[in-house]
Amino acid sequence: MSVSRESEKAKRILECARDVFIANGFVGTSTDQLAAAASVSKQTIYKEFGDKEGVFSALIRYACDRVDDPFEPMTAAMRRVATADEGIERLAEQFTVSIMSPHVQQLRRLVIAEASRFPHLGQLYWENGFLRVLASISRCLSVLDERGLLSVPDPSLAAQHFSGMLLWIPSNREMFAAGTAVVDDDEVARDIAAGCETFLRAYRR
Amino acid sequence: MSVSRESEKAKRILECARDVFIANGFVGTSTDQLAAAASVSKQTIYKEFGDKEGVFSALIRYACDRVDDPFEPMTAAMRRVATADEGIERLAEQFTVSIMSPHVQQLRRLVIAEASRFPHLGQLYWENGFLRVLASISRCLSVLDERGLLSVPDPSLAAQHFSGMLLWIPSNREMFAAGTAVVDDDEVARDIAAGCETFLRAYRR
Repeated sequence: MSVSRESEKAKRILECARDVFIANGFVGTSTDQLAAAASVSKQTIYKEFGDKEGVFSALIRYACDRVDDPFEPMTAAMRRVATADEGIERLAEQFTVSIMSPHVQQLRRLVIAEASRFPHLGQLYWENGFLRVLASISRCLSVLDERGLLSVPDPSLAAQHFSGMLLWIPSNREMFAAGTAVVDDDEVARDIAAGCETFLRAYRR
Repeated sequence: MSVSRESEKAKRILECARDVFIANGFVGTSTDQLAAAASVSKQTIYKEFGDKEGVFSALIRYACDRVDDPFEPMTAAMRRVATADEGIERLAEQFTVSIMSPHVQQLRRLVIAEASRFPHLGQLYWENGFLRVLASISRCLSVLDERGLLSVPDPSLAAQHFSGMLLWIPSNREMFAAGTAVVDDDEVARDIAAGCETFLRAYRR
């Protein structure tokens, strides 16, 4: 089913399903558990989502929508910022907060873990989550280029550079530490500031 | 046991163990399978590595050694290159080839998949693989800075930016596609060249 027209009940099932999948993996999760977690009948699960894989696919789409949603207003914000520095700093803040949220990272690890067995779930996440956020970043950078604040001849490539410079360490650390990493907030803030500064140095007009 | 003083037999066991672990995951692999794959007795496995976890830990260390080994000669190469461009291009080529090799990526996915259950294995990979390669990149950039070819006040930070700009797309794509991605070699070459160019723009003296 389409994520955009989900009922409140469907949303609640997905919120509960996320925790069950994250705790047990895709293979280790049963439809019974999904039904119990949301306090609904198995019939409701089947009616709303078809089967376990239907729940998981809907969950990926739902989670990807939620992580990308803040980037639509960011495009408008890029039209209003006074300087390139202000734009890049706001974009970096939104990007790191959105992507590094525990929910996003836990789902990301789950999809990676299952990608060998269920390549189409990996593909779904790649297209609806990863590439979609990258396209949103790219649109924001295009606005800064059009306004003459930055020089971004290839926005998609610049979005790669922006994302990679900011998240190479936090994203990898999170994958290997699985939520147990002791993260120094000051260090994170310094790394974000340094990533913005370097990006601006490379892409300033 | 230490990886450096591994016997030929131990190395062969690890090479075979890698394929078994990658095919079945850590939990799905038995010591029987590890012994059968290397055509040795279970006693040999116990004697060499203690238990299944001992084999896995030794495998991570062994694989991390192999991926980092080419970077020692790279530091020396950085002392000989004529220009910053030549240095960065050679480093980028070695880095992407080393990290994006199927063996490295398969092991990486396996460790990420098991990191929630076995945080110390994730930690082992993070320290012996990820951070170690980052430190090697950092040393190479320091050499280019000392020689006055680049301006790299914080080599560790610059190594993050270098790695992130080059590998954000290929490394993530590989995690979600699990080896099934159709990769366009020309596109990869263009992305590497563009990553080098952007890095040089940000860090040129």
